[in-house]
Amino acid sequence: MLENRIRYKPLRDKITDPSTASRIISDGSNLFISGFTAGYPKQIPQELVRRARQGEQFKINLYAGASTGYQVDGILAEAGLVSWRRPYMSDRTMRKKINAGEIRFKDDHLSRLSSEVRAGNWGRCDVAVVEAVAVTEKGHLIPTMSVGNTPTYVREADRIIVEICAEPEELEGIHDIYIPEDPPYRMPIPIYRTADRIGKPFIEMNPDRVSAIVFSDQEDTCAIFSKPDKAAIRIAEHILDFVRHEIRKDCIPPALPWQSGVGDVANAVLNGFIEDDFFEGLSVYSEVLQDAILDLIDIGKVRAASGSALTLSHKARRRFFNELYRYKEKIVLRPVEISNAPEVIRRLGVISVNTAIEVDIYGQVNSTHLMGSQLMNGIGGSGDFLRNGALTFVVTPSTAKAGKISSIVPMVSHVDHSEHSVDIIVTEHGLVDTRPLTPRQVAEQIIRRCAHPDYRDLLWDYYQRAVKTSGGHEPHLLEEAFSFHRRYMETGDMRPAP
Amino acid sequence: MLENRIRYKPLRDKITDPSTASRIISDGSNLFISGFTAGYPKQIPQELVRRARQGEQFKINLYAGASTGYQVDGILAEAGLVSWRRPYMSDRTMRKKINAGEIRFKDDHLSRLSSEVRAGNWGRCDVAVVEAVAVTEKGHLIPTMSVGNTPTYVREADRIIVEICAEPEELEGIHDIYIPEDPPYRMPIPIYRTADRIGKPFIEMNPDRVSAIVFSDQEDTCAIFSKPDKAAIRIAEHILDFVRHEIRKDCIPPALPWQSGVGDVANAVLNGFIEDDFFEGLSVYSEVLQDAILDLIDIGKVRAASGSALTLSHKARRRFFNELYRYKEKIVLRPVEISNAPEVIRRLGVISVNTAIEVDIYGQVNSTHLMGSQLMNGIGGSGDFLRNGALTFVVTPSTAKAGKISSIVPMVSHVDHSEHSVDIIVTEHGLVDTRPLTPRQVAEQIIRRCAHPDYRDLLWDYYQRAVKTSGGHEPHLLEEAFSFHRRYMETGDMRPAP
Repeated sequence: MLENRIRYKPLRDKITDPSTASRIISDGSNLFISGFTAGYPKQIPQELVRRARQGEQFKINLYAGASTGYQVDGILAEAGLVSWRRPYMSDRTMRKKINAGEIRFKDDHLSRLSSEVRAGNWGRCDVAVVEAVAVTEKGHLIPTMSVGNTPTYVREADRIIVEICAEPEELEGIHDIYIPEDPPYRMPIPIYRTADRIGKPFIEMNPDRVSAIVFSDQEDTCAIFSKPDKAAIRIAEHILDFVRHEIRKDCIPPALPWQSGVGDVANAVLNGFIEDDFFEGLSVYSEVLQDAILDLIDIGKVRAASGSALTLSHKARRRFFNELYRYKEKIVLRPVEISNAPEVIRRLGVISVNTAIEVDIYGQVNSTHLMGSQLMNGIGGSGDFLRNGALTFVVTPSTAKAGKISSIVPMVSHVDHSEHSVDIIVTEHGLVDTRPLTPRQVAEQIIRRCAHPDYRDLLWDYYQRAVKTSGGHEPHLLEEAFSFHRRYMETGDMRPAP
Repeated sequence: MLENRIRYKPLRDKITDPSTASRIISDGSNLFISGFTAGYPKQIPQELVRRARQGEQFKINLYAGASTGYQVDGILAEAGLVSWRRPYMSDRTMRKKINAGEIRFKDDHLSRLSSEVRAGNWGRCDVAVVEAVAVTEKGHLIPTMSVGNTPTYVREADRIIVEICAEPEELEGIHDIYIPEDPPYRMPIPIYRTADRIGKPFIEMNPDRVSAIVFSDQEDTCAIFSKPDKAAIRIAEHILDFVRHEIRKDCIPPALPWQSGVGDVANAVLNGFIEDDFFEGLSVYSEVLQDAILDLIDIGKVRAASGSALTLSHKARRRFFNELYRYKEKIVLRPVEISNAPEVIRRLGVISVNTAIEVDIYGQVNSTHLMGSQLMNGIGGSGDFLRNGALTFVVTPSTAKAGKISSIVPMVSHVDHSEHSVDIIVTEHGLVDTRPLTPRQVAEQIIRRCAHPDYRDLLWDYYQRAVKTSGGHEPHLLEEAFSFHRRYMETGDMRPAP
């Protein structure tokens, strides 16, 4: 009986159906929802789509912690219900509409979101829709598989709709909810070690603002990551070799925590630890925790894992829920302004691994826009970790589209992370530690070590002519800087016809 | 008698002449010097030049806190004595040689420097050369007008040369020296308000490592900033109007501290406060403090000013030294890893103003490279403040070179700060708050409000065709993105011939 999960009994009066609950949402509403790859509400979005199908004309502004699943971003985008979306998304239809200018979107550094919302910079917080496993005896919320910005949304919202879902109530205790004061009254965020708990296990909520509670039996749909391919495994090997070497040289201490972005290469790095016998007692201070974390906890390699969301495959979910008591000892879920806090990332000295779309010969990184114009997903938390980590890796397979696209280009068509925020560039061919190098040395090494052999001569030719013709600290030929991209857009291949 | 300033008497045995002192410096030496726009050593650099003139063949690697004066960067570059230089410079000859590939250079985010040096990533710390006003009774150092990375350099150096200079010994007490532990043992940096003092008024030094002490009677030569021109004054007015408005709307609290970069516009902003009757009880949490700070302290507008250096004109210096006791109550000089610490900047909620070379229609910022290739000075601390400030302004006059260069371009030729790290773009024509806008809206507003009228139609034409042809979230025409730059390189004017 999900009703029993509303332990604060006066709120049981608010139990209703999604149709009634959603009535407070109308054209122009600002909707602030829970969700950070996982833990998003399901009933209300579906209800909004139903209303639209019945002919109601309305659009909403949709703000979450980061991306959500098809059940939110997908169906709302398909139904044409989204006017604005922030701060990150990964849905195919939504992406298409953003690129067509039909959905307004701005991608933001995730660490800054909550304070921007509290400052009122995202507009009035009309309605918060949040997924929870329970309402506590005092009327507070126990969230589900993510925290994201939910604590701030719940605090700021005029009205709150709660979706009580069927995930185990025993999730209680895995969350650590702490909202820092905003400047000029902010104090240090008192996390000194990955596992530190500094807040409460629930999200504080004013029960008077709850306008409806609905029940949900739907699960998150999480993107399934394929088994790492050869390139991903090779990239992971390069990273582990390098870090092992740095530790042995005593350049970095052995106990630094790791962050690994979302995706195949990130998973490959974590998988790499499984077979490895050098690394032990690891800790993970990351944003999204995925399946590999459970494996590493199971074999005793990971001492502590902190993130803002736990995004598991269907299979891993079952395993996690079955032994929740055991995983709860190792895993902490935090608000994203804490998981991604520059202060904490720099204090702990996080080793950070993030994926790029393309990297240029001087180490400038594009992680958001294809061919300079088309948004992929957004910047997410990559900047928070790359800028502040103690050792930061940007990784990419050297080519995409069966070799037709080189991920190493003369100049990236969009810059998200400047060369100053990235220490080490890695492809399956090799790795360049840019820290002790001048930009020209970086270019020479990236071409030689990271680029795919099919593109090395082309890149070398560009670089040599740039040195000769333009000179300067970072020689570029502005008329040719995007020649690779232009060739691809014209012929479908960055390589010239033979 | 400068000798009396060596209060730790055993060190008086180390007093010598620059020629003898400099003998420990030889070909390939890594020289870590004090200095952060001010407070650099003068005797030893001159001595090195003398040795070179006498025919000695050698080169050194030169690391400071940031830029130094002509007496270091200028003369050493002219004499061809510099192999490597990090992390920032502003000397004409040095710039020329860096761009020619004759001096190796890497510009770094200043907040990360000290920890990189402690980790050994800049190589062995052979010799530290530091300017000081005194050596304390226990053998510690009282630095001069800057702190920069000196505390770390003194701690890490194998051998130390001290230049005791004639600046007033009463500078003692203005510095606040704190070296944080490195990860994973770092604790929060305990600064909660601008004026907080968390360390010691001296730089800890192991007297056994002091190999020589020399005396110096030379002063820093500081760049003289011209009186702000009309454009700078207009930019400052836009900023103050905007912030006043934000405070009145209660979007930001009135007590946030300010950071203002080096240069005319930055000075104009501070000068703007003098006439203003809205702002009071200001605090400044910045990197380099300049003349205007003294004026603001004098009229009681600034309650506290924190920086890593005090870079004053000759006239302001006299004034400062005459009433040092009074200014010392308001001013704190800190290591740059503290003045620029992301943790502290974000905690305090700094309002940050930094200058760009060029900005593009989507708000990407170039602050380092002319025409994509030629280094200007380096990134310095701009990234530390822009990424972490509560409200961040990037400012530039709308044109340069008498209108021949537009500072607003279709795409910047180099990116240092991505659109995500910049809130507000300002030229003398107007201001765009990018925070609530999509990239397309940003483009439309920057063209309309910030660009110089001579370039508006050109930019609008580019943008409109990009939307039509490429579409996407940030429409660009890659074949034309640098058309402004190419025209300038061909004709000396970004405007097409009439």
